[in-house]
Amino acid sequence: MSGSVFGKNFVISTWGESHGKSVGVCVDGCPAGLEISEDDIQSMLDRRKPGQSEFTTKRNESDRVKILSGVFEGRTTGTPIAMLVENTDQHSKDYSELKNVFRPGHADFTFEKKYGIRDYRGGGRSSGRETIGRVAAGAVAVKLLKKLGISVFAYAKEIGGICISEENFDLEEARKNALCMPDPQAAEKCMKLLRSIKNDGDSAGGIIECRINGLMPGIGEPVFDKLDARLAGAVMSIGAVKGFEIGAGFEAARMRGSECNDGFLSEDGVTRASAINSGGTLGGMSDGGEIVFRAAVKPTPSVSVQQKTLDINGEEKELVIKGRHDPIIVPRAVVVVEAMAALTVTDLIIQGLGARIDNIKRVME
Amino acid sequence: MSGSVFGKNFVISTWGESHGKSVGVCVDGCPAGLEISEDDIQSMLDRRKPGQSEFTTKRNESDRVKILSGVFEGRTTGTPIAMLVENTDQHSKDYSELKNVFRPGHADFTFEKKYGIRDYRGGGRSSGRETIGRVAAGAVAVKLLKKLGISVFAYAKEIGGICISEENFDLEEARKNALCMPDPQAAEKCMKLLRSIKNDGDSAGGIIECRINGLMPGIGEPVFDKLDARLAGAVMSIGAVKGFEIGAGFEAARMRGSECNDGFLSEDGVTRASAINSGGTLGGMSDGGEIVFRAAVKPTPSVSVQQKTLDINGEEKELVIKGRHDPIIVPRAVVVVEAMAALTVTDLIIQGLGARIDNIKRVME
Amino acid sequence: MSGSVFGKNFVISTWGESHGKSVGVCVDGCPAGLEISEDDIQSMLDRRKPGQSEFTTKRNESDRVKILSGVFEGRTTGTPIAMLVENTDQHSKDYSELKNVFRPGHADFTFEKKYGIRDYRGGGRSSGRETIGRVAAGAVAVKLLKKLGISVFAYAKEIGGICISEENFDLEEARKNALCMPDPQAAEKCMKLLRSIKNDGDSAGGIIECRINGLMPGIGEPVFDKLDARLAGAVMSIGAVKGFEIGAGFEAARMRGSECNDGFLSEDGVTRASAINSGGTLGGMSDGGEIVFRAAVKPTPSVSVQQKTLDINGEEKELVIKGRHDPIIVPRAVVVVEAMAALTVTDLIIQGLGARIDNIKRVME
Amino acid sequence: MSGSVFGKNFVISTWGESHGKSVGVCVDGCPAGLEISEDDIQSMLDRRKPGQSEFTTKRNESDRVKILSGVFEGRTTGTPIAMLVENTDQHSKDYSELKNVFRPGHADFTFEKKYGIRDYRGGGRSSGRETIGRVAAGAVAVKLLKKLGISVFAYAKEIGGICISEENFDLEEARKNALCMPDPQAAEKCMKLLRSIKNDGDSAGGIIECRINGLMPGIGEPVFDKLDARLAGAVMSIGAVKGFEIGAGFEAARMRGSECNDGFLSEDGVTRASAINSGGTLGGMSDGGEIVFRAAVKPTPSVSVQQKTLDINGEEKELVIKGRHDPIIVPRAVVVVEAMAALTVTDLIIQGLGARIDNIKRVME
Repeated sequence: MSGSVFGKNFVISTWGESHGKSVGVCVDGCPAGLEISEDDIQSMLDRRKPGQSEFTTKRNESDRVKILSGVFEGRTTGTPIAMLVENTDQHSKDYSELKNVFRPGHADFTFEKKYGIRDYRGGGRSSGRETIGRVAAGAVAVKLLKKLGISVFAYAKEIGGICISEENFDLEEARKNALCMPDPQAAEKCMKLLRSIKNDGDSAGGIIECRINGLMPGIGEPVFDKLDARLAGAVMSIGAVKGFEIGAGFEAARMRGSECNDGFLSEDGVTRASAINSGGTLGGMSDGGEIVFRAAVKPTPSVSVQQKTLDINGEEKELVIKGRHDPIIVPRAVVVVEAMAALTVTDLIIQGLGARIDNIKRVME
Repeated sequence: MSGSVFGKNFVISTWGESHGKSVGVCVDGCPAGLEISEDDIQSMLDRRKPGQSEFTTKRNESDRVKILSGVFEGRTTGTPIAMLVENTDQHSKDYSELKNVFRPGHADFTFEKKYGIRDYRGGGRSSGRETIGRVAAGAVAVKLLKKLGISVFAYAKEIGGICISEENFDLEEARKNALCMPDPQAAEKCMKLLRSIKNDGDSAGGIIECRINGLMPGIGEPVFDKLDARLAGAVMSIGAVKGFEIGAGFEAARMRGSECNDGFLSEDGVTRASAINSGGTLGGMSDGGEIVFRAAVKPTPSVSVQQKTLDINGEEKELVIKGRHDPIIVPRAVVVVEAMAALTVTDLIIQGLGARIDNIKRVME
Repeated sequence: MSGSVFGKNFVISTWGESHGKSVGVCVDGCPAGLEISEDDIQSMLDRRKPGQSEFTTKRNESDRVKILSGVFEGRTTGTPIAMLVENTDQHSKDYSELKNVFRPGHADFTFEKKYGIRDYRGGGRSSGRETIGRVAAGAVAVKLLKKLGISVFAYAKEIGGICISEENFDLEEARKNALCMPDPQAAEKCMKLLRSIKNDGDSAGGIIECRINGLMPGIGEPVFDKLDARLAGAVMSIGAVKGFEIGAGFEAARMRGSECNDGFLSEDGVTRASAINSGGTLGGMSDGGEIVFRAAVKPTPSVSVQQKTLDINGEEKELVIKGRHDPIIVPRAVVVVEAMAALTVTDLIIQGLGARIDNIKRVME
Repeated sequence: MSGSVFGKNFVISTWGESHGKSVGVCVDGCPAGLEISEDDIQSMLDRRKPGQSEFTTKRNESDRVKILSGVFEGRTTGTPIAMLVENTDQHSKDYSELKNVFRPGHADFTFEKKYGIRDYRGGGRSSGRETIGRVAAGAVAVKLLKKLGISVFAYAKEIGGICISEENFDLEEARKNALCMPDPQAAEKCMKLLRSIKNDGDSAGGIIECRINGLMPGIGEPVFDKLDARLAGAVMSIGAVKGFEIGAGFEAARMRGSECNDGFLSEDGVTRASAINSGGTLGGMSDGGEIVFRAAVKPTPSVSVQQKTLDINGEEKELVIKGRHDPIIVPRAVVVVEAMAALTVTDLIIQGLGARIDNIKRVME
């Protein structure tokens, strides 16, 4: 199994290569009765679209999504929702140069080793276009969560080593600037840095932070399907992500227990965790506080500087990767992180519906 | 589903509470023909046993494992392997004090919210004893991987903020000292620190590093079942783990692409990645290099210092947790990390057997 | 994977061989708050126990079940419920005769071919004792369904070619006579026949019918997880079952559409299907009527008459199977059919909880 | 989950409604290196196409399949294969009459009850067009099995009560006549009968038989994933199938053990079961003999004769279904049975690759 199926009850199957006919996704298990339109999907897809700033590739894709099934008179029917985006910019570029050589930091080598055959045009299945299916499905999940009062919001916390500052923090700013940074001054500094990096033919990485609000306590399952474990697996499955942490994360390893333990709050008769260091989970279940996690994104492996590598016969090659590529993928990955978070939370909410016999009775009545 | 089932083809189901009759695991999907004995399991279980040093609880458990099925004349038969450890130290201690109060940093609150009922004795299902099933199953996976020439080795890299040094690094040392640190001097310093922390009634956390060697390229699946994603999900499902990173991890976010990209090596006609920053995966598949990942472990939440919390009615309480608890769980968690890594890799190896039609033909002949 | 895991949300894992230490099951996903005791499990297990009549083997097993986890103060906690029955009658009988020979109608040959090793003592994993795990888990499902107003009731409809008659039909009788037949006269005839068959050293088969009442409409999923499809898969997984049909079943193939189509009824404002020929499903979902299905059980393959077979080297052998074996397994399989039906329906009820966004809201409130 | 995902390792997700934009399927887990073309898929799809004889609907669909992904230079790459067929005949017919009424024998009622919303145009998701995804995926499985020397062949054994005879049996004939019957004389009789039934505005059912040859012994898993259990679940998931039996099936229930037990054969040093009554499985695993199973298909529920039913408010209605509908769906279902059988066998072959540690070593080398 090529591992393109995600989720246990809200199940998505994605498909498609960079230079195939189309990329898409099929969502099985979306509850009936949710209002959804192509515009809902499109607005989220547009946030990962190339060609939106000087820091993203110029690939000329309109990336218009079509809903093929599962929606009737504007609402979901409970049957599978298939969505498709055509690849319109499969231009005649010659990829034969990359047919027999392994680009450093890319998946060329491992695809070759695993399957003995690969679509080498534009990265094939390991292209960033693979995330279109994730985001389209994620848009459905986001809409569903919204109906339940739950929001998911991600942004770039750090790019090329430059981090946002607490005092300048402005969440709305993250949807305004080209870098998705909730701090206009940090964004400004990063843009300067990125222009310089781009000039060098090099690339940068960064850290994405994501916050989930409104989540009721008890979501996530105690042992292997912990909310944090499933979020980690989901987010680490995004290409280029090399690390995941929740709450205090790696800093927690340096704290004392008395310092790391969060307390509980009671407001209007509702108890929840203060969730400062926990990041919103206790024992793998949501604790009623805000979920906060971070993902480390490595620099784009496609750089124009000359690199040493090997070809398919084990011969050394000097490689210069030509053509379009982003000096930074963090801003475009922000919406992918949101999508994966929304998909994970939705799946776990549905997985938990049967946690109590009283809940089952309530639905059956 | 309480999420106590792990894996797709090498599937384990764990069960058991701290103060129930027993804890155990059922392994479905272990290939036939593997030599395995209770001693193989026991030797790995002994590494997580309490009462082995001044830094672990005094709980008096012999934790003897029994294999109940699936092994015949010393070899696996391909049928489910059930393994069980009895809880012998369920002494008469009175837990009623914890019945209605939520310990900070523990899962009491979230279990209550999710299920409306919980076994509050010793943490119930969220007790560290839950990991016995993981380690017993992991021991089977470790034995299987060994037959394929693959080794999994974890150790404490950092405890209470004190990190091992490169120059003192001695892997065998990690199996000798009480802290599982591959650096005798760092271990010495940490022990001093831990004694002081223990005296204060407090606790510490740390970082566990794990290395997998001998893994052939191409293990892991391209999209959602990436090797690193599945490792992250597996390791983050261990209680108290708050972060996961592979290779350069969070440091990768601060590198340039030209710096982060690893090259390839060709030795004796075999190509592999140099895997310095990748941590041994490219595009989610093993790249032939050493797999290196790290897990951040928070300090034990059970501390003796007085803490503020709430009870089940939302009333404020002053809480002092009595009785045995580890000032550090990192050394005991090392073998759990190994177990989860071995289970993940084994599952993905089996998942990948059908990657090529030629492989299927080879097995069918 | 040896296929010992069943279900998607109410997941059971069974283990154990005829002559291993024990047989058992782990149930993951049972909702919290269900009252359950070892007596609830035992009373269902007792119905499949050997040695209860002249028509079952004399194997002297008390088959006492122990609940090892997941139940606290008499109620389920939502965590895995492990249950175990020890094999106490593994007497010293010499099975070496069967080590190298393939019994006709048994799984000796296929186990050997698949795994290259098998526990040949008493059939190993393919023994009827494998069903203990199914029945123990099924007892939990039956209790859960009862709370929701749903009952599952199976009986022998036909044995050795002798069928019950409509006019003598008496459901309570099915729990009284040794053959589980709801018709005392048919049962009497069958007993005479079976005594004669037993004298000949031969065996008989039969047909089990199962009725599910109280099931709300809409249970089962439209395409691959149809209620009838999942029931068929579950019931056909019981050893010796060679056929499954629902409602009019194979007779439906000979009807006209106008004759086969059931109508709908409206009583007290509630609409349901009349379900005469449908057997209670339309489009794979329960239609509000009674579910009625049947399973064909082949005669016990263990017969004392001399049979021709081959040994492991392909040499012809004359085989006479000695020792205890049932001339009919239908009466003992009745409770196994109930168990599999209850497990299937429970799993599908939980799977369907998220079918409507309104249901999710109702649980979340 | 709407249950539109099938398989564990060779996983298919289907989507689409009768009057939506398209129907399709995504296949995840197809091994790399298989030669496949749109023609391979099309030729199997053409066998279920409407409008091919006087006994199938006149729906004017060309049903041209497009492969969207996963195939590169004529061979599978191991990544998901998405396939799509557009719905071109969604003519302007007014379906509003069926909006509020439940057709007897159809899924209108149960969809309404489960989801509270349904696409009532042409049956929506419960339309026969749902099987296009199954057949397209099945065509990939058939091609893969062929490479392994395994064939799957189904035909109509009985229609409207008229059964083929042993003496006239001619397998090739089944691909020639409009009814897919391997007996020209029986086919002739059936056609006469069907014309008369069609004139009456009524419909007929039948029995489909399927044979699988070339399957190595040991395919299928011992307990819940038995080959026969999985085939039963797969075939019973096809709309209108009400019964499944393998080998002697329901007749086995009336045999004596000495009669029902098959023997073993040894030819050229290869042992296999004679598989007369077993239908090719022992203990749920293939026994080296021919697999033979049957499916009972109910008569098409769409009949033109006047029927009584209820509407959405529980009011009685007289219903006359207008428009195109098949008097028999058996001939078109034959290829669907083949598809489901091929998908099941392929999935179980891959699931069994890890049955022995020696097999894993062989692949890893």
